[in-house]
Amino acid sequence: MESLSNMRCVACRKDAPPATEAEIVELHPQVSEWEIVEQGGIKKLRRVFRFDDFAEALAFTNALGELAEEQGHHPTLLTEWGRTTVTWWTHKIKGLHRNDFVMAAKTDDLSRRP
Amino acid sequence: MESLSNMRCVACRKDAPPATEAEIVELHPQVSEWEIVEQGGIKKLRRVFRFDDFAEALAFTNALGELAEEQGHHPTLLTEWGRTTVTWWTHKIKGLHRNDFVMAAKTDDLSRRP
Repeated sequence: MESLSNMRCVACRKDAPPATEAEIVELHPQVSEWEIVEQGGIKKLRRVFRFDDFAEALAFTNALGELAEEQGHHPTLLTEWGRTTVTWWTHKIKGLHRNDFVMAAKTDDLSRRP
Repeated sequence: MESLSNMRCVACRKDAPPATEAEIVELHPQVSEWEIVEQGGIKKLRRVFRFDDFAEALAFTNALGELAEEQGHHPTLLTEWGRTTVTWWTHKIKGLHRNDFVMAAKTDDLSRRP
């Protein structure tokens, strides 16, 4: 199976199918440090990345913002002193799409870059 | 009275007095677009700034991050497509200090810059 982080986000329309439970069970182990949370009935992927100070957290927010722009899919990024909390989901389908797992894997890759 | 946005943040220690109710009543009208919210018993100042897309929201996050670094006082910044939600409070005193009102006023100033 191709690794998630090598995949590209696909265009996602309102009628795109959300990830099924079976897909989630298949995909989640590839991004196992992400928690699946539910907010207002919407499933989301969330991970906290820790840093030494505010500037480092903001630098990560920017690097991820650039990646999001490239892929045309955007997370929410909570930047604070020493950490950035990243949340991925797909607004259009009010839930998780395969794209969100792809982006979570790419975010993990980014966090490992020196 | 000197306007809040011209003041500078002062160093804040654990034993610094939080803003009193009387001070909050005095200061809040100067930053009237900020909501006073309470999270886990901690009073905070919060305002949502709206933008045309993700890139503009991220640019505002960065401009505010730079100001925060200059002043040595840091907010939480929730960046998402079309908006940045800014929250100010003082971790050390688990509540609102005059500094937070100063920073809210400076944030308003920043948002009005062309």
